[in-house]
Amino acid sequence: MRLGAIKIVGTGLIGTSLGLALARHGIKAGLSDHSKANLRLAIEYGAGEEASEEPELVIVCVPPDTTAEVVAEQLAKHPKAVVTDTASVKTEIHSRVAELAGKDASRYIGSHPMAGREKGGPGSARADLFFARPWVITPTENSSAEAIDFLKDLALKIGSLPILMSASEHDRAVALVSHLPQLVASLLAARLLEGQESELNLTGQGLRDTARIAASDPNLWMQILSQNAAAITPLISKLREDLELIETSFHNLSEAGALARINSLLERGNAGIARIPGKHGGKFVNYQQLTIVIDDSPGALASLLTFIGEIGVNIEDLKLEHSPGAPIGLVEIQIDPASAQQLAKQLTDNGWRIV
Amino acid sequence: MRLGAIKIVGTGLIGTSLGLALARHGIKAGLSDHSKANLRLAIEYGAGEEASEEPELVIVCVPPDTTAEVVAEQLAKHPKAVVTDTASVKTEIHSRVAELAGKDASRYIGSHPMAGREKGGPGSARADLFFARPWVITPTENSSAEAIDFLKDLALKIGSLPILMSASEHDRAVALVSHLPQLVASLLAARLLEGQESELNLTGQGLRDTARIAASDPNLWMQILSQNAAAITPLISKLREDLELIETSFHNLSEAGALARINSLLERGNAGIARIPGKHGGKFVNYQQLTIVIDDSPGALASLLTFIGEIGVNIEDLKLEHSPGAPIGLVEIQIDPASAQQLAKQLTDNGWRIV
Repeated sequence: MRLGAIKIVGTGLIGTSLGLALARHGIKAGLSDHSKANLRLAIEYGAGEEASEEPELVIVCVPPDTTAEVVAEQLAKHPKAVVTDTASVKTEIHSRVAELAGKDASRYIGSHPMAGREKGGPGSARADLFFARPWVITPTENSSAEAIDFLKDLALKIGSLPILMSASEHDRAVALVSHLPQLVASLLAARLLEGQESELNLTGQGLRDTARIAASDPNLWMQILSQNAAAITPLISKLREDLELIETSFHNLSEAGALARINSLLERGNAGIARIPGKHGGKFVNYQQLTIVIDDSPGALASLLTFIGEIGVNIEDLKLEHSPGAPIGLVEIQIDPASAQQLAKQLTDNGWRIV
Repeated sequence: MRLGAIKIVGTGLIGTSLGLALARHGIKAGLSDHSKANLRLAIEYGAGEEASEEPELVIVCVPPDTTAEVVAEQLAKHPKAVVTDTASVKTEIHSRVAELAGKDASRYIGSHPMAGREKGGPGSARADLFFARPWVITPTENSSAEAIDFLKDLALKIGSLPILMSASEHDRAVALVSHLPQLVASLLAARLLEGQESELNLTGQGLRDTARIAASDPNLWMQILSQNAAAITPLISKLREDLELIETSFHNLSEAGALARINSLLERGNAGIARIPGKHGGKFVNYQQLTIVIDDSPGALASLLTFIGEIGVNIEDLKLEHSPGAPIGLVEIQIDPASAQQLAKQLTDNGWRIV
């Protein structure tokens, strides 16, 4: 189907990124924002032009707390348009829109393009933000098949993966894969406040990764978490039950069963991790890792990658492990297992050091 | 001082990596292991030769549960040698060695080179495993200055950073920066067992990072955690108290103070994260990030890095974000802020796309 005129309300990280993605596919979105500075920056970045045309689709990209109100406003303002939003919690917004918009609410479809960054604002926007990420669409019973298709086409157009779910299914899912991890990271990072500096100096990659998202914006997360309390609370309770078992086990380590309970937690952790699908969606793709030593000098990494590129091997993932203060770095690459042995041989034959 | 003959007992990941690091610096270690297969593999990798010479230093690299016994054996077997170990918990091993070895225990110094991998065994060994990582040394009151210096020299020789601490200081530190994160990651990952596949399909980088170390070896971690219960238990209790507060807040979200408590946790998480020192040790080094779009083809990354190398800008850190199924990838580089603006201009002028 034809993608008609699109209006984006709110030109922060999400709205501006959407505008940039649409612009890349030849669609000039109409933009609107209460903040004139944000709006102007988004337009200068090329995310669209100031909204004027009557839209067929309005995408509301404002913080979760004000989403329902803005959706209702837009439904009233554009009586023929389908209106969607991008907030990361859906049930509460669905029912609030129904309350506020009455009959107009039939033109509302919830959605959640699942991407973000730790930094917000139009200046952090990226045209590729939603590329290859799930775009969850949460229709209501009143949503027309045509409106759903419009939104699916839009998601596909910018390279997102449209997934249909009910609002409550969505909220349960994000409670588990997004909101609980946020709380757990914050709980862990909060413990660091009581550590000595000499203790924190021993921090390795494990703590860094486990606590990373604790650096997220508290205000945004307050809004997200408080709108999804119903789905988050049972998960927190179960986590607390597990934690109490572990605490009791540590308190009474010599009692029968104490070690078994700790061991069982670690094994369940292993099994839980194994359920996370591979980065490329669906089943786990098992790449082979090679670690190569390079000089810590400008051009050293380039020369390695030029060599690998000339052989014709595609690097699926790359991590540079910089050795502080040292004249070397470690490059970890993930490659197709079919190419690994041959590549390793060619690297070694040409003087590269594999560790 | 001269580094005398060194014997490594246990040729798993740690022992073999140490042997490789020493070999690189011209020191051939004597190796020993109950497992003939491991020993042979370590020797084939070049980690040393079968132990025969009378050692001046013995490094015991066996699992935490058997460390004290093996240390005592080695103290008896080599009556003039200093004996150290590499276990990641120290207090319990110190007192057990004192019990088992009596007067010989004065030749024991605890140590903990802080590095590891999720995979074990000599086949996973890396000569650079300890490079630029802290090597904590935990002397006893009986340790001679000479023996401590011997160990410090050894650590420096292979590029590790020797840090002197008491055994109990060490154990409190690792409880916070290593053992608590492991438990938290396992607790989170264990929750995934009850998720639907459709829910797990929405997993993003946040959950992946937060739960990553839950994939670690349960048996090894059982040994570590159970030896450090005294330091871990109070941290777990405080985490549980925070979690209970949060649980209560979610249960009674409309009550006064509920949101403030959740917000306070998120803010304390922010503040905790900010206390983690920069990757390069000591204070946070604030690099500037640039994100550049490349083709997902062999050689594309190389050509970008060649360009950057020719300009003479050193890349401090690099992350390749691969867009599944798409013809592009995103390269995030960390560079000296002083070079960032100029580099961005030169990249853009030469047709690279910065997002």
